[in-house]
This record gives sequence, structure tokens and C-alpha cells, in this order.
Amino acid sequence: MRPKLPHAGSLWHSGRDTLPEKSPIIPFAGRVGANQEFTLGKNSCARAEILQKFPDAAPWIPVRDAVSLKGFLQIELWKAATVEAIASCLLVYLTCFVAIGLGQVVPVFASGPVVPGLIGGLTALLALPLFIYSAGPVSGAHINPIITIATFFSRLCSLPRAVLYVSFQAFGAAVAGYLLRASMDTRSFIVPGCYIDTSKISIGSAFTIEATTDFALVFLSFGVGLDPRQREVFGPALGPIFVGLIVGMCTFFTGFSRDGYTGFSGNPARCFGAMVGSHFSSYHWIHWIGPLTAGMLHGVLYFFVPPYSREEVAAARNIRDDDES
Amino acid sequence: MRPKLPHAGSLWHSGRDTLPEKSPIIPFAGRVGANQEFTLGKNSCARAEILQKFPDAAPWIPVRDAVSLKGFLQIELWKAATVEAIASCLLVYLTCFVAIGLGQVVPVFASGPVVPGLIGGLTALLALPLFIYSAGPVSGAHINPIITIATFFSRLCSLPRAVLYVSFQAFGAAVAGYLLRASMDTRSFIVPGCYIDTSKISIGSAFTIEATTDFALVFLSFGVGLDPRQREVFGPALGPIFVGLIVGMCTFFTGFSRDGYTGFSGNPARCFGAMVGSHFSSYHWIHWIGPLTAGMLHGVLYFFVPPYSREEVAAARNIRDDDES
Amino acid sequence: MRPKLPHAGSLWHSGRDTLPEKSPIIPFAGRVGANQEFTLGKNSCARAEILQKFPDAAPWIPVRDAVSLKGFLQIELWKAATVEAIASCLLVYLTCFVAIGLGQVVPVFASGPVVPGLIGGLTALLALPLFIYSAGPVSGAHINPIITIATFFSRLCSLPRAVLYVSFQAFGAAVAGYLLRASMDTRSFIVPGCYIDTSKISIGSAFTIEATTDFALVFLSFGVGLDPRQREVFGPALGPIFVGLIVGMCTFFTGFSRDGYTGFSGNPARCFGAMVGSHFSSYHWIHWIGPLTAGMLHGVLYFFVPPYSREEVAAARNIRDDDES
Amino acid sequence: MRPKLPHAGSLWHSGRDTLPEKSPIIPFAGRVGANQEFTLGKNSCARAEILQKFPDAAPWIPVRDAVSLKGFLQIELWKAATVEAIASCLLVYLTCFVAIGLGQVVPVFASGPVVPGLIGGLTALLALPLFIYSAGPVSGAHINPIITIATFFSRLCSLPRAVLYVSFQAFGAAVAGYLLRASMDTRSFIVPGCYIDTSKISIGSAFTIEATTDFALVFLSFGVGLDPRQREVFGPALGPIFVGLIVGMCTFFTGFSRDGYTGFSGNPARCFGAMVGSHFSSYHWIHWIGPLTAGMLHGVLYFFVPPYSREEVAAARNIRDDDES
Repeated sequence: MRPKLPHAGSLWHSGRDTLPEKSPIIPFAGRVGANQEFTLGKNSCARAEILQKFPDAAPWIPVRDAVSLKGFLQIELWKAATVEAIASCLLVYLTCFVAIGLGQVVPVFASGPVVPGLIGGLTALLALPLFIYSAGPVSGAHINPIITIATFFSRLCSLPRAVLYVSFQAFGAAVAGYLLRASMDTRSFIVPGCYIDTSKISIGSAFTIEATTDFALVFLSFGVGLDPRQREVFGPALGPIFVGLIVGMCTFFTGFSRDGYTGFSGNPARCFGAMVGSHFSSYHWIHWIGPLTAGMLHGVLYFFVPPYSREEVAAARNIRDDDES
Repeated sequence: MRPKLPHAGSLWHSGRDTLPEKSPIIPFAGRVGANQEFTLGKNSCARAEILQKFPDAAPWIPVRDAVSLKGFLQIELWKAATVEAIASCLLVYLTCFVAIGLGQVVPVFASGPVVPGLIGGLTALLALPLFIYSAGPVSGAHINPIITIATFFSRLCSLPRAVLYVSFQAFGAAVAGYLLRASMDTRSFIVPGCYIDTSKISIGSAFTIEATTDFALVFLSFGVGLDPRQREVFGPALGPIFVGLIVGMCTFFTGFSRDGYTGFSGNPARCFGAMVGSHFSSYHWIHWIGPLTAGMLHGVLYFFVPPYSREEVAAARNIRDDDES
Repeated sequence: MRPKLPHAGSLWHSGRDTLPEKSPIIPFAGRVGANQEFTLGKNSCARAEILQKFPDAAPWIPVRDAVSLKGFLQIELWKAATVEAIASCLLVYLTCFVAIGLGQVVPVFASGPVVPGLIGGLTALLALPLFIYSAGPVSGAHINPIITIATFFSRLCSLPRAVLYVSFQAFGAAVAGYLLRASMDTRSFIVPGCYIDTSKISIGSAFTIEATTDFALVFLSFGVGLDPRQREVFGPALGPIFVGLIVGMCTFFTGFSRDGYTGFSGNPARCFGAMVGSHFSSYHWIHWIGPLTAGMLHGVLYFFVPPYSREEVAAARNIRDDDES
Repeated sequence: MRPKLPHAGSLWHSGRDTLPEKSPIIPFAGRVGANQEFTLGKNSCARAEILQKFPDAAPWIPVRDAVSLKGFLQIELWKAATVEAIASCLLVYLTCFVAIGLGQVVPVFASGPVVPGLIGGLTALLALPLFIYSAGPVSGAHINPIITIATFFSRLCSLPRAVLYVSFQAFGAAVAGYLLRASMDTRSFIVPGCYIDTSKISIGSAFTIEATTDFALVFLSFGVGLDPRQREVFGPALGPIFVGLIVGMCTFFTGFSRDGYTGFSGNPARCFGAMVGSHFSSYHWIHWIGPLTAGMLHGVLYFFVPPYSREEVAAARNIRDDDES
């Protein structure tokens, strides 16, 4: 059990003041599963400089900092995006590979897609925490455009980082698609979670399920993996496991109730990669517009009900501005 | 939950300064699951001497030290390699024995290889952490050439150690192969994970699956078991369990999606032993070249995005050089 | 997570110095699951006296002490052996009772012995830690001749203790055998793990499987339950659970791959009791010679790669000799 | 992991000295799962008075105190017995209700009672710790005559408490029996664990299984839940879980191996309640004499191999007597 933070009253202050300037861990408020533990503390002497370079080193990024394009000049962002690309490539490859197999065995089970859906949920539950642990210290372990989009709209992630991450995630997923095609000896394969039988389910239904479940995914992921108040409840070892549980749960819950629907996507890059490897379908926009809708809705919620005192955070940022002037 | 390290600022410094000269635990940066906890601290008075004998007692081994052949003279390396041989022999024997049985029951299940594959993944998940705990303090618990190769290319392991480990792992696996033949009363047996039906799957596909999954295995194993930044997140008791989870996950994910493919190997020595016990096949090179490719690719990634500040590590090594002069 | 031992540098010294002379816990280096936590510390004033009476209160017993027959005069050894007898009786009774039932239902499952074997492994995994916790403080919780034999050859257990333990374990198991016969209303029952269909499997195969798996059992049990270096990694609550995992794993792994072989024994007393209760078979020697071979092989390994600095332990013992003179 | 007790040398002394006189927790040596953590410390100024009123506030009760009938005058004992009655009623109702259902579905499973037995064991494993946590602070959470009987013979529980507890447990169970009859709309139901098909299994066998497994249950429960030496190994949160594991394990192990036998009882009150609700059978004496035999045998073992130094405990009690005189 984690010891109580001594100054738990002011949650935002409990960021790390001791992160050295040369440490390879760049503070990032949007790190998944860490519940903002690795954010910038208030008293760091290097504060101003770090916030200048990485406005998302602390939460509640001012709008003018968030959209500033200076971030594209930071080599660390490009390194982090590269790790996102590699992790996305591997995650998409593995979860598509196993899902293809699970989709094939559905007709074998008398119970239909329930058991394969359960196993499919289990695969997400297993794979995701391991990837979050591995990529977390470098990139914050989004490994999924839906998380990057949601953290951007929640002002935990700057625009340059968001653009780089989503692009590199999509690129990594595309490489995974080509590797899948090579591994399957064919481009005729179906990836559950990205396939919809449009003769059995309307586009409106598919979009409703996708967007609603995406919003649940974002809401819950922020609740267990990006909320500074959870630092007192469980540490950075348990957070990623809960995020895996969320994705696994959503995958299983939406996977078998409607005939012709193979489960929500929850990861636009995964379906992008799967379609690069096989064929693009007309409804692929759902996999992107669903998460975008969910991320924007969540941003509005986050604006009105933030998990920290906004005045306090703004005051801390003003201190920075004073230092600058 | 692990207490915070008091000097977490400088991660590399938090190695143990108190390891006594006569302690049976030789510091080794490449110890699996320990996240470099048992590496050499900066202030140890015996630093210079230990680094002279064991350049891999600290990470980021200089190239000239890494390839120095003096390591072959260290009796401790031979002892560690012997433990690797014994652990590899036992691990290969047990995991092959159970896999042979699981392969036999596949036709019994209406769902084909899904359930046996799931059980097969479970066996890796169970067996590996126990072996890592047991062999860890002596040899660092590689028990698998793919880990040794990857730590070598990531400059956490010296060349003499790598050569000794891989040789002894292969030797132990060969003994396991003969024990398997004696246990089966025949040399006609098939070990899932090492067998490919080349009439159903192309060699290109098999190599793609093997190399990609090997890379995922190495990337994740380093992320949860060899990353000094994870010492703050979870301790040396949880690391080996996550490594077991990784191998179990990859085994299950690749085990049933393609007809004629029984899952990725992930351990060249295991398949070497299985083939010593039964018969060698023409595609055995995949089990070695796949891991080699993955280890080298990961070495490149590790070079550009290292989990510690390279300047700091180099500075610490320079101090050593000063002491020597 | 366990706090770091303050004087972790000298692992052997970290034994308890504060064990009172009248404490009911007699220090015993061969206590399973405790990783030598409850061994004699270096500075205890009662050291000399305790080591005189119980040479196995500290590891690395000198040969002349180990084989000294004076131990037979210690009433505490007889009490401990009695607890071993009771625990062995109960463990053998329960695990044989459930195994008989599991053996009966094998033909019911389409998949043959896989699922019953899995449940059988689970029973070992459940039962063993509970017995180790219960018997641990008194006898060190061997409850199995294979552990007693292996600790003797590793010089963690004196000869009188080994002789008493094995005898009482066998006696307890024999009582369990008679209780089984009474519980079954017959002496015609088959206990999986002790039965071999010699028409389907050669004696050589059976011995190879038994001895190799026994060696794995001993190697892993020492690694997670009797290694002083693991005290830093996990404490005495987790050790017994890992030991249960080892036996469960080996039981499952060897339980179904060969037709006619019901799994390795791993506990000579269990099969002795089962045969007392039903009928003795010609191959019962395998259940004893296999563990003996494994224990002796492990003793050789332990001699050359001990988990502590032998010089240090010997020095500590010399101090004792000085005190005596 | 629990921190080491600073004065671990004298285990019996490490009881709580700080329990206030007005604390609602009356010290009770026989509290299940607490490993005698909540017993009376040596230096409490209220010692003499408390021991006068509650001789079982510390272990090793002198015989004349144990059988003294003055305890019947303590209102706290009647309150505790009432809680025992309520907890027994609820536990018996719930575990019988689910067991009736599991017994009905046995014919549905091709594998017979194995899977229902596994689920039945799981229900005990789940329910028991929750009841032990809930009733523990007031009554010590016996909730089962077998524990009360065994603690009495081990001199951890006074005679008045034992008589009150067993009576109230039986009364609570009888109420549960009537509630079951009302819930089932019939008195023709069979509760697995309390039903024996005497045409298929001899009374001698049934008694042997019951008494042996009861002894295992008592031996293990004392080992993990009533042993002061375990306070160092795991705390009062884990103890009740292990006790639940023991009952679940024994329930499953004995549940399916013999045709016509539905598993050991392990709780006389549960079967008493079940028979009040349905019909009494001729073999109900087994459910009481089995536990009585096991409790007495365990008392003998406990007398010869107690988990604490008897001299020390007696000395502490003499101090009390001196205070009185």
C-alpha cells in the first residue's frame, strides 16, 4: 500500500521537485497509468525552462502554449513519438494476429462469439499493461490515438506532441499491417473489432456503439490512470493494469451482443493498420470520428469538473511567468 | 508498494553501494526482472576492481571493455554459465514435455488449438518466473539466448558472458533433448512452438511472425525487467512475473491463428533441444536468426533512446578510469 | 514490498540475533519458504550453545557436526519429527483422496487427462502452502522426504534430523494409507502420481521423468524457498506460495503427455502411503531413487555455487569454536 | 509485508499492552485469523482484572480457570455468543442455499460432481473470510463449533465461552434451517456436505473421512490463524483468507472422489441447521463426533508442541496471581 503523501492537501504540488535536469524522464502530465505522478513539482528551479520547452510537463496547459508550434523543435518529442510508433506497431501486430485467429474459431463454438469475445477481451487485458509499463517512462504510453486525442482536449498534452504521436501511431500501425499481410500469406483476413457486416447492422448503430464505448473508455481511463487524486489510492504499478482491464472489458462487452458487429474499435490506429494490411472499408471513418467525438466531449467535462484546483495550478503557472519576465 | 528511493533524482546512482566485496551476488546490469537494481553503485570503493573484472556490473559498457576477452578468465562467469545450462535444461525439458502433450490433445478439442494454446501460454507464465527467481542471483536468469543476445547488443552484457551463456544454454537444452527422447521412448514427437507445417505456411510468413514477436518479447522484457526507471514502480518480486506474462502472452497470441503454425519459438535453445531430441528440420535457422534480428534492432533503439542519462553513466566510468591511472 | 535489510551487505549476518533462548522457534537453516530468515545470527550470545545442540541452526554444517549422532538426544528434534509425521499424514491423505477422484473422472472428459491434471496441479498449489505455514515454525515444513534429502546433501540439515524426518514422514504417510483404505471401503484404488501402466511406458522413461522433474523441483524450491538472497526480494509469506506453485506446475506438466503415466511423484512418502493403503508395485523404487538422485546432484551444484560466501560462514563458525575452547 | 515486531524475542509478550480498558475489543486468545495478536500484553495495568473476568484473554488458560463457571456471569460473553448466533445463521443459510443449487446441477455436468464441487469449495473460500472479518472483533469469529471445540481443548477458550458459543451457533443454524425451508417451499432438499448415501458408503468410511479431514482443518486453521509465530509472517488481513482457503480446499478435496459422499461437513452447526430445515438422518452424530475427536486429538498435540514457551506464559500468569494475593 502506498504511503500517504505528506502534503496531500494540495495535490498538484505533490509532483516531483527533485527530477534532475539531466534525468531521462521528461515530466509529462499525460502519462497513462501514472496518475500525474511524474509531473513537474512547484519548486523545481528548472521549472521555467522545462515548462518553456514542454508545456505539458504540468497539467492545465494555457491555450497559447498548447498550440505553440515550438514543440516540434524538441528532439525529445520525436524520440517519444518513435517509441509510440514502435509500441503501436507491436501492439497492433500482436492483438490483430490473435484476433484474426479468434474470429476464425467463432463458428466452432456452440455458444457463438461469447467465448472468443471473452478471450479477445483477455488479450487486451494482458497486452496493454505490459506495453504501458514499457513505453511509459519515454512517451507516457498512449499507444492509441484515442488517448492522445483525449489528453489534448483535456489540456494535458500539447498540440505538437498530439500531432506527432497520432501520426507516428498511425505509421507504426501501418507497418504492423504490412507485417500482418506477410505473416498471413494473404490480404484477405478479418480483424474483429474493425469489421462490421453492414448488411446486418446500420451505420448509425455502429457509430453509436463506437462513440459511447469510446467515451466510457476515456472517462474510465482518466479515472484510473490520469487522475492525480488516485495517487493516494494506488500507485503507478496498478494503474496500467486497470487501464488494460477497461479496454478488455469494453472489448468483451461490445463483442457479441449484436450479430454482425465484432466489437468496438477503441483504437483508430489498430483498425487503420488492419486495413492497410487487408482492404479499406467504407465505414473506417467511424473508427476515427468516434474517438474524436468522445475525446472532445470528455474535454468539456474535464473543463467543468477538473480533478485539481484550477486556481492553484494557474497560480503556479503565473509564478513561472513572473520568473520569465 | 516500494518506498521511494531517497535519491531518485539520479537513477543510475541508486545502484547498491553497499554490496560487499565478498558477497556472492556479483553485480550484473543484465539481470532479468531486477530492473538494474543489483548493479554497481557509484561510490563503492571496490568499483574500479569490480568493473575491471566484470565490465557488465554497470550499464553502458564501453565497446573495448565489452569485447575484451579477459572475461573468459573469470571463474564466476563459468559458474554463472553452468547455472544457465542447468536452468535451461530443466526449463526446456519441462516446457517441451508439457507442450508435447498439449499438441497431442489438439484434435480432441472441437475448438482446435485455442484451448491447448491458452494452456500452453499458461505454462510459460507459471514456469518462467520460478526459474528467474532461482537463477537470478547467480547468473541474472537469462535462461534464453534471445535475452542474452539482446542484452549484449544493448551493452548490458559483455561478449565473453554472452558467448558462454549462449553456448551453455544450448548445451543444457541439448541434454534436455536427450532426456526428452528417453522420457518419450521415441524420437518421433512434435514440440509446439518449434514445429512448422511448411506445406501450409510459407517460410517468409514464419520468419515474419518469429522476428516480429521476438522483437515484442525483447522490447517488453526490457521495459518491465531491465529498465532502471521501473525500480520506482515495482520491485524485483514483480518483475519476473511480468516477464513470464510476456512470454505466455506471445506464445498464446501466435499459437492458433494460422493453420500449420504452432506458435512463435521465442527461445532458440528450446527448439535446438527439441530437435536434438527428435530430428532437425530445414527451418531451424528461423529460431536463431529471428532472435538475432530482434536483438540487433532493439540494440539500435536502445542506443538512441536509452533509459538513463548516457553522459552521467560515462562520467561515472571516467571516475573509474581516473582511479585506475 | 519488504523493506531493505539495513545490513544487506553481509547476507549471512542478517540472521536473527534476537531469538531468545526460550523461544519456541529453534533456528533451522533448512526451513522451507523462509529463505534462511530464521537462522542463527552471528552475534547471539547463545550461539555456541545452540550450534552445539543444533548444528543446522546455521547453514554450511561442518561434516563432522552433520553426521554426529548426538542430535538424536534432542527432544526438540523428536517433537519436530512428530509434527512432520502429522502434517505428512494429513497432506498425503487429502492429496491422495482428491487424486483418486480425479483419476476416476478422466474417462469422462473428452480431452482425457488434461483437465483432471490441471485440477490435480491446482490441488497441490492450494494445499502445500497451507501446510508449510502450519508446520514451518516447528519443523521447517519439509513434509516430503525429497526436501529433507536435498537439504541434507546441501548441508542445511543434520543427519539425525534427516533420518528422523524421513522415518516419521513415511510413518505418517503409512497411517494416511490405512485411513485411505478405510475411507474407500476397499484397497483397490489408483492414486495418480504413483501409478504407472508398465505395459505402455518403459521403466527407463518413468525413471528419467521422475528424476529430472525431481531435480527441477529441488532446484526451484531452493531458489524460491531456501535462498538467503531472496530475503531481499520477497518475504516468508510469499515463499511457501511459490513452493506450492512449483509442485503444482510439475504435477500438471508431467501428468498427461504420456499415455499410461499419471505424473511424477515428487514425494516418496505420498506414494509409500498410497501403496501401504492399496498394494505395493514393483516400480516403487523409482519414487525413492529418483529423489535421492536429484538431491545428491543438487548437493554437488550447491557445493560449487553456494548462495552465500563460504569463507564468511566458516569464519563465523570458527568464532564459535573459539568460544568453545 | 508486515514490519518486524521490535520485541519479537518474547512472542507472548508482544500482545497489545495498549488496549484500553474501555475498548470494545475484549482480548481473546482464540480469535480466528488474528494469530493471537489481540491478546493481553504482559504489562497492562488492567491485566489482573481482565484475566479474572476473561481467563481466555491470554493463551494457556489454567485448568481451574478454564472450567470456572463464573464466566457465565459476564454479559460480554452473551453478547459475543449472540453475534456468533447471527453470523452462524447467515453463513449457514447462504452456504446451504448455494449448495442445494449446486447439488441439483450435478447430473447436468458430464463430469459429474467435480465442477459443482469446485464451485462449492469456492463458495466457502469466498464467504468465510468475509464473516471472519465481520464477527472477529466481537466474538473472535469462530462461527463453527469445530473451532470453538478445538480452541477449548487447546486451552485458548474458557468452558463458559465454549458452551455459550456452541449453543448459540446451533441455535442460529436452526433458525437458518427454518429460513431455508421457507425459502425452498419444501423440506425435501439435500445439502451437499451433510448428506451421505448410506447404501453406497459405509458409516465407518464416512466417519474416517470426516474425522481425518476435520483434524486437517483444525491443524491448518491453528497454523495459519491462531499461531502467534505467524504474526511475523503475515498479518490479520491475510489470516482469515487462508482459513477460508482451508475450508474451501477440504470441501473440494472430499467432495467427489466417492460416489454417494457429498463431501466432509467440517461444521456441525451447518448440518444441524440443514437437518432442522429438512429431516434428521441417522448418521448426524458423525458431524459432531468427528469434530470432537479432531479437537481432542489436536489438544493433545498442542499440549506437547505448543507454539509458545509454556514456562514464560505460566510465569506471566504467576505475576498476575501475585498481584491478586
